[in-house]
Amino acid sequence: MEIGGLSFGSVEIDPATGKPISSAQGIRNLLEAIELADQVGLDYFGVGEHHQAGMPIPNPGTVLAAAAARTTRIRLGSSITVLAADDPVRVYEQFATIDALSHGRVEITAGRGAAPEPFTLFGVDLADYDEAFAEKFDLLQQLGRHERLTWSGHFRPPLDDAAIVPRPEQHEIPIWLATGGNPNSIIRAARQHARVFFSDVGADPARFEPLARLYREASAQAGTPEENVKIGFANVGLIADASVNAADTWWPHFDTRSREMSGRSFPRELYDRQTKQQGSFFTGTPEQIAERIITLHELIHHDRHLVEADFGRLPHAVLLRHIELLGTIVKPLVDAEIE
Amino acid sequence: MEIGGLSFGSVEIDPATGKPISSAQGIRNLLEAIELADQVGLDYFGVGEHHQAGMPIPNPGTVLAAAAARTTRIRLGSSITVLAADDPVRVYEQFATIDALSHGRVEITAGRGAAPEPFTLFGVDLADYDEAFAEKFDLLQQLGRHERLTWSGHFRPPLDDAAIVPRPEQHEIPIWLATGGNPNSIIRAARQHARVFFSDVGADPARFEPLARLYREASAQAGTPEENVKIGFANVGLIADASVNAADTWWPHFDTRSREMSGRSFPRELYDRQTKQQGSFFTGTPEQIAERIITLHELIHHDRHLVEADFGRLPHAVLLRHIELLGTIVKPLVDAEIE
Repeated sequence: MEIGGLSFGSVEIDPATGKPISSAQGIRNLLEAIELADQVGLDYFGVGEHHQAGMPIPNPGTVLAAAAARTTRIRLGSSITVLAADDPVRVYEQFATIDALSHGRVEITAGRGAAPEPFTLFGVDLADYDEAFAEKFDLLQQLGRHERLTWSGHFRPPLDDAAIVPRPEQHEIPIWLATGGNPNSIIRAARQHARVFFSDVGADPARFEPLARLYREASAQAGTPEENVKIGFANVGLIADASVNAADTWWPHFDTRSREMSGRSFPRELYDRQTKQQGSFFTGTPEQIAERIITLHELIHHDRHLVEADFGRLPHAVLLRHIELLGTIVKPLVDAEIE
Repeated sequence: MEIGGLSFGSVEIDPATGKPISSAQGIRNLLEAIELADQVGLDYFGVGEHHQAGMPIPNPGTVLAAAAARTTRIRLGSSITVLAADDPVRVYEQFATIDALSHGRVEITAGRGAAPEPFTLFGVDLADYDEAFAEKFDLLQQLGRHERLTWSGHFRPPLDDAAIVPRPEQHEIPIWLATGGNPNSIIRAARQHARVFFSDVGADPARFEPLARLYREASAQAGTPEENVKIGFANVGLIADASVNAADTWWPHFDTRSREMSGRSFPRELYDRQTKQQGSFFTGTPEQIAERIITLHELIHHDRHLVEADFGRLPHAVLLRHIELLGTIVKPLVDAEIE
C-alpha cells in the first residue's frame, strides 16, 4: 500500500512579526517538504490547486516540475487540478512535460474543486459545473490515449487531428478522478476506466466502504483494466511525536484557517469528535495513525493513503516533522500489515 | 551587456536508429543545457513555446521551474510566451510561482507567435490576433503592478477586485514585448513602459537601428522609468570551435528543420549570405561572434543578446558546446568591450 503526503501550500505566521511569511517563501517551503518526503521514503506527494493568499499554489504543475528536478524516486501529482476551470489540453501538455522531467513519475488527479476562486477568476458558470467537468475529464483521458485527436465539445474549441506534444515518458500518465463521495462521480470514473480518489473532508471514513464497493463493481462492469482499478484516499490531520498532543498542536492552525476561509471558528467539540478513533481527522502519534490507516484499509482496501497536514497556516517545522514521521514510522508499520 | 542562450527544445535524430529521440528526452536535454548555461556564466536563458513534435516545449514555464530548482545564478524566462492564445492570469500565476522557486530570477517575454498551432489548438481567431495580443499584454502588465485588480476586456472574463497569488519574489517581474520589428509593436511596448525584445529571423540586423531609436524615443516620451527601457535581441546561429566550420556544421540541421516546417529546403545561397559578416545568422568561432555582437551593439546599444542554435534537430552535444563557448569565450570578450 502506498503512503504519501498532500499539501495546498502554507503561509505560516512568522512568530517574530506576527505576520504571514511571503507567498514566495511558502512555495519554497513546499518544495523543501516534497524533497523531504522523497528522502524519507514516501510513495507519493500531491500538490493541490488554490488561488488564495494562504494557499498560494495556483499552478501545482509548476511546483511539481521543480520537485521533479530535486527528487529521484517519489511519484508526484496534482491533488487536485480544478479541471472544470482549466483547459485539458494545457493540463495534459504540462503534465506530459513534468513526466519527462521526472523520468515518468507524474500523475494527475482532477476534481471539480470546492473553492469559488477558480470559477470567478476564469469565468466558469457554476450552472455548467457538472457538465463542464464531465466533458473535460473525458477529453483529458482521450489526450492520454491518442497521439493525435479529433474532438469537439461545448467547453473548449474543437481539435482537428491535433498532435499533442510532448508524449509522456510513461506509457500512460495515471489519471484519478477526485470526489468527496458523490456516487455519480464514482460511476463516471469507473465507466471512463479511471482511478478514483476519495477526498474526505470531515465525513466518517467508514462511509466510503459502500462507495469503494460501488467503484469496484462499476469498474468490473465497465471492463476497466486491472491496473487502472485503484482507490486513493486523502484526509486531513497531523502526525506528531508521542511527547506532543497532536490534536492540541494542530487545533490553533486549523481554527485560524477555518476562520479565514469561512469567517467563523470551527466548533471545538466537533473537532474533538473528528480527531477521535472513528473520526475523519487523523491526529495522533505515528503508531495511532498507522492503526487507523490499517483499520480503514480493512473497510475500503484502498491502494494509496495521503494525510494532509497543512492547508494554510501550519508552521513549516511542524509539517516537516509530520512528513518525516509519515515516512519513517507510519509507512513501515502499514507495510508490515498490508502488502 | 548580458549574453544568453535561447531554445525551443530540440529532438535530435539518433544516429544509431536514424529516428528522432523521444520528446521526453528532448526536454531533459534542454534542462541539461540550461544547467550548463548557468555553470558557464551566461546571464540569461530563454525557452520558447511551440506545440510541435520537433520543438516539444508547449509550456516553457514548466521547464523553467525545473531549471530554477537546478540553477543558482542565471536569469530564466520565456522567449516567447504566445500570449494571444493564452490567459494572462494563468501566465502571471505561473511565472510568479517560478519567481518564488528561483528566488527572483524569472522574466516573461510575450509575443504574438508565428506558428499556427497555438491558434488552432486554443481556438484563437486570426482576425483577432492583434487586438487579442494588445489587450492581453496590457492585462499582464497590470497583474504585475497591482496585488488586486478589477478589469474587463474582450478576450477573457472580467476580474472583480481579484487577488492574484502568489506575489513574486522580485518587486516586479520584468516583462518584455517581443517583435520581429513591427513599429506599432515597438510603440506599444514603449507606451506600456515595457522592455522590447527584437527577434531577428533573417533580416539584416542593421535594420534594427532605426527601430531601436524609435523605441528609446517613444519610451522617453511615455516617461518610462529608466530600468524598464531595455532592448533585447535574439538571432539564430551556431558557435563552434575554430577547427570546425560552424556554417557547414549547422547547415544540415537547419535545412532538415526548414523542410519539416515549410516542406521545402532553404536555399543554400541565401543561407551562405545570411551567415556572412552582415547577415542575420551568427555562425562562426566565438571570436567572430563576439565581434558581430559588439558591432551590432554599436548600432542598437542593446542590453541583452541571445544566440539560438537549436530549433528542432540540432545534436545535443553540438548545442552544449555552443553554450559553453558562448559563456566561456564570447561573454568575456564582449564584457571587455562593453560595460
